[in-house]
Amino acid sequence: MARMPNLPKPYIVDTEHSPHAELKPVPLAAVTLTNGFWAPRLAINREITLPAQYQQLESTGRLDNFRRAAGKLDIDFQGRYYNDSDVYKWVEAAAWSLAATEDPALKDMLEGVVHLIAEAQEPDGYLNTYFSFDRAPERWSNLRDMHELYCAGHLFHAAVAHYRTTGNTRLLDAARRFADLICDTFGSGQAQRPGVAGHPEIEMALVELARTTGDVRYLAQAVYFVDARGHGLLGNSAYHQDHQPLRETGCLTGHAVRAAYLVAGAADVLAETGEPALGEALTRLWQHMHSRQMYVTGGLGSRHRGEAIGADHELPNALAYAETCAGIANVMWAWRMLQLHGDAGYADLMERALYNAVLPGISLAGTTYFYVNPLATDGQAEPGGQIYQRQPWFGTACCPTNISRTLAAFPGMLYSVTGRTVWVHHYAANEAQLTLPDGRQLHIVQRTRYPWDGLVTIEILTEGTFTLKVRIPGWCDAQEERFRPTININSAPYTGEVQPSHYVTIERNWSVGDALCIRMPMAVRRIAAHPHILENTGRTALFRGPLLYCLEGLDHPQHDLRDIILPPSGALTSTFHTDLLGGVQVIEGTASAVTIDAAWTASPYRAVELPRGAMSALELTAIPYFAWANREPGALQIWLRRS
Amino acid sequence: MARMPNLPKPYIVDTEHSPHAELKPVPLAAVTLTNGFWAPRLAINREITLPAQYQQLESTGRLDNFRRAAGKLDIDFQGRYYNDSDVYKWVEAAAWSLAATEDPALKDMLEGVVHLIAEAQEPDGYLNTYFSFDRAPERWSNLRDMHELYCAGHLFHAAVAHYRTTGNTRLLDAARRFADLICDTFGSGQAQRPGVAGHPEIEMALVELARTTGDVRYLAQAVYFVDARGHGLLGNSAYHQDHQPLRETGCLTGHAVRAAYLVAGAADVLAETGEPALGEALTRLWQHMHSRQMYVTGGLGSRHRGEAIGADHELPNALAYAETCAGIANVMWAWRMLQLHGDAGYADLMERALYNAVLPGISLAGTTYFYVNPLATDGQAEPGGQIYQRQPWFGTACCPTNISRTLAAFPGMLYSVTGRTVWVHHYAANEAQLTLPDGRQLHIVQRTRYPWDGLVTIEILTEGTFTLKVRIPGWCDAQEERFRPTININSAPYTGEVQPSHYVTIERNWSVGDALCIRMPMAVRRIAAHPHILENTGRTALFRGPLLYCLEGLDHPQHDLRDIILPPSGALTSTFHTDLLGGVQVIEGTASAVTIDAAWTASPYRAVELPRGAMSALELTAIPYFAWANREPGALQIWLRRS
Repeated sequence: MARMPNLPKPYIVDTEHSPHAELKPVPLAAVTLTNGFWAPRLAINREITLPAQYQQLESTGRLDNFRRAAGKLDIDFQGRYYNDSDVYKWVEAAAWSLAATEDPALKDMLEGVVHLIAEAQEPDGYLNTYFSFDRAPERWSNLRDMHELYCAGHLFHAAVAHYRTTGNTRLLDAARRFADLICDTFGSGQAQRPGVAGHPEIEMALVELARTTGDVRYLAQAVYFVDARGHGLLGNSAYHQDHQPLRETGCLTGHAVRAAYLVAGAADVLAETGEPALGEALTRLWQHMHSRQMYVTGGLGSRHRGEAIGADHELPNALAYAETCAGIANVMWAWRMLQLHGDAGYADLMERALYNAVLPGISLAGTTYFYVNPLATDGQAEPGGQIYQRQPWFGTACCPTNISRTLAAFPGMLYSVTGRTVWVHHYAANEAQLTLPDGRQLHIVQRTRYPWDGLVTIEILTEGTFTLKVRIPGWCDAQEERFRPTININSAPYTGEVQPSHYVTIERNWSVGDALCIRMPMAVRRIAAHPHILENTGRTALFRGPLLYCLEGLDHPQHDLRDIILPPSGALTSTFHTDLLGGVQVIEGTASAVTIDAAWTASPYRAVELPRGAMSALELTAIPYFAWANREPGALQIWLRRS
Repeated sequence: MARMPNLPKPYIVDTEHSPHAELKPVPLAAVTLTNGFWAPRLAINREITLPAQYQQLESTGRLDNFRRAAGKLDIDFQGRYYNDSDVYKWVEAAAWSLAATEDPALKDMLEGVVHLIAEAQEPDGYLNTYFSFDRAPERWSNLRDMHELYCAGHLFHAAVAHYRTTGNTRLLDAARRFADLICDTFGSGQAQRPGVAGHPEIEMALVELARTTGDVRYLAQAVYFVDARGHGLLGNSAYHQDHQPLRETGCLTGHAVRAAYLVAGAADVLAETGEPALGEALTRLWQHMHSRQMYVTGGLGSRHRGEAIGADHELPNALAYAETCAGIANVMWAWRMLQLHGDAGYADLMERALYNAVLPGISLAGTTYFYVNPLATDGQAEPGGQIYQRQPWFGTACCPTNISRTLAAFPGMLYSVTGRTVWVHHYAANEAQLTLPDGRQLHIVQRTRYPWDGLVTIEILTEGTFTLKVRIPGWCDAQEERFRPTININSAPYTGEVQPSHYVTIERNWSVGDALCIRMPMAVRRIAAHPHILENTGRTALFRGPLLYCLEGLDHPQHDLRDIILPPSGALTSTFHTDLLGGVQVIEGTASAVTIDAAWTASPYRAVELPRGAMSALELTAIPYFAWANREPGALQIWLRRS
């Protein structure tokens, strides 16, 4: 069993450099999105989604649970025992949304909710509205199933976000009191009891709380929770990542969101402790996930049963679970690995998952959500099928507020800094005021229509000598003319190597008005899957830039999408349709469709030698996967037959 | 809600012709298997499997539960609440096994168990060892989940088998008393309550009890249970086939075994009532199942979650559930449809499922069982995988005794009779003494090594004018020389049409010693799957005769089976290996394997244009799927890439 670690006091202060991470994040308020692809999405998130979620928190009794716990309402607890976490994630999303934008109405809502939360806290610091009154004796009685530590973690994250964006310590104080109680309660000391969370989350949250408060005790507690796992406290269950100590595991197992939250928390611990064995484990787990467990979307979770990671290369399409929260968790893990190692592969994964595993989880209007994200559906409800349609809320509503806090935090993921270097991880129109570790203020502007267009101009508005590291996405291809990325500095071509999935390092004495132009060719790419992903044998997926494309039934009303054959070569063009789906780049081309002949009606098995049905040409229309099911529910296909 | 039907008294006596069925079954005792493929299997079933199962019934407390209920043991109920059903299925299997073969030791075991069962019956006729003593007040309180009517059904089936093979009425009397109680209890009468079984089985059993006793009340009760379904008594659950009345459903839904048991029971009802709407529903459900829900094995059930039927064409391989009991249920349904309609397609399905969905469920040694039958596995346990290996027993042990009763009953499925016609449904070496409806005794002998060899000789040992109808299996192909079936009568070729999936009708004044020779060419067949079974796109399965073949990892130690490519043409030979797996015909040929290049290690997604790995030739060895995992657990592949 893990013992409480004896840690050196690390250097941990808000937004400062974790001692063992390569990169240092920048404050969210330093980056302002300016139109382009992302700014309107974050505006919808702030103006439409968060107020609508607030109404859901109110109408489903989630806020009343806090009023009840505070003694202001004499009613029963409403909903599921983990419902507090949705309130906390909403607070986090609202707080991050206010970091760089004023919104008095949202601010009022936020402060009202913070007030409710703080009032519900027990005198000893405990805070969970389910375990109040007659359920108080059941506190901590079932750490595996009852999500108490999970809810606590989301409270801490909410408190950190609220404090960082408002400077107000009300929620942070409440979080610290609860964290102190948890530190007093769980551990290997004589007055403590062993314990570990059935659903990870508190590991990340405690490290963030340590970073924000400078209190190393919270970090030590996070280390304890990582170390205590895999020693039978959760029944040795692989579903709960308790079958082995984390440092000994070779791959993610069990519930996908739990698995990814755990490694994201361990990565936070690693950034503070630098422990080699933990670092090796995380790299090993990452490589396994990336090569064998990940959907082409960047999503995770192959099985509806247990919302779980599957066997290696078990990545079914129609039966995919790919919970929106698991895609978010993969982004969170990748972001932490990127800060640790400065390796562009992690930023590539963030980009893949943000566009193709997170964005599909919310409607373009910002009002409905997918919990499960299939990669194919025939659009039929029966028998045993499901008509996939985004929903305004869920009984277990983890995904909606998780999407909102991720979108709200996105501007903070565009850049990092080290020494006299600015790292540009992601491309989105924005204006940033960055502070280098040496104290210099840099003002830079990104202009781009990315991901619709591959041209990014980074304008420098501060003079001086410093370094820009710009990521060349892994989807570019230096060997292939059509996909070869290039860089210009002002009008001169950059002559160094421009290698995909790496950062190009440009050190220069910049003048105000200097412009770095990155061109990432946006030709349509045909992608194949590993031969062991058996459902995708002989099939192609289409990408353009970072965006995965798909076919929808309503664009091909004469055909069953499963009968469409896209030959391995042949022209595919793309055009921006301003009036479609809020404006999307559409891929078009000629494909063919095979007729399913009547002989198949009798039996689904017959001689290979029999001729297949007649072929007919058709005009294919592919839209970005993130935009699917925004017109009407129906058939979906990503992986198309090549023959 | 269904009302108790007002039925005419049908003509129902043991083994007599159900009034609305085309065919009439023959008594099990009329057919004696004589070496060949099946006789040794039934001998193992009788001599090894049933005694071993008896020991399991004893050691797991299943028999003690009856001793306890009889007041002879003061212990707690042991195991699951449906464990009585395993005892009943064992009784049925043992009774059928004794129909044509003497086995004093087995007979003693059987009578001992019958004695235990009868002694456990309550004074009012109730008989379920779980709901005895302090649980007696909970009787019938949860028909959906507690399997009371399911267990009762298996008691009735056991009683019918025991009575038919021994003439002893002890168990039949007990069954009737319990059936009378059930008839008194459930229905739409004033003194009755509405009710329907969460797990169908009692529908078939009540019709068999009616046929055996001549008591129409049991038939009426079966009709009630069929009719009462789909009206919300089971919460409108599709899992329990309660979402719609059966006559209105378009496809099987929910738990695969329950779904197929229900339609098999409805087919029994139909044979007695001839109700057109029920007949149309069953034909519609059959066609839907056969064209969209059935594995190439004849198995059913695509989903581990809920052990359930999937959406149309959702037939994953590694993730198949294909419970052995569901394959058995499909055989039971097909057998009843065959008796109703005399259509060879039903016998084709029986053959497909018996060889490829039922036999794989038991080891060649007759001592271990598969509950789940995957169609592919990489043989790796981690992560999230499973090493498939047959087990000697299960906590929920429905499959072992279900296989045994099916094997024991198999000789009774070889023939039916009508008028002056003998129907030959299946080919297996046997000697039969059949009684035509006109009272004539016919003695015929089948000599064949089928399914290893396609030559079947039917020798006639009774002179006179009568008709033989012999089934030409659907896997033959009259259009294709290699697969064209032929018939000789003595040395003369039969000149009529020999059409696959039909019965050839031969009326003749037979002399003693006349021989009908059927030749079914056993060339290897390459089979493709419906294009909407997406995991099988561009893949081939191999059949030889009725047998589905597979590759096992241990025959290809240098290769991952998923990398093996079998081109659409090229010679495949087959040879009988006497020393392999108890003697099996093996398919051999040259195939190739593609090397998975190292570039796949980084990401499972890459450009279609990239060259695939080097190809190498390999010698492929395929064995019958039913024999897989009898040497060591490991990798399995049925559907092979064509390119």
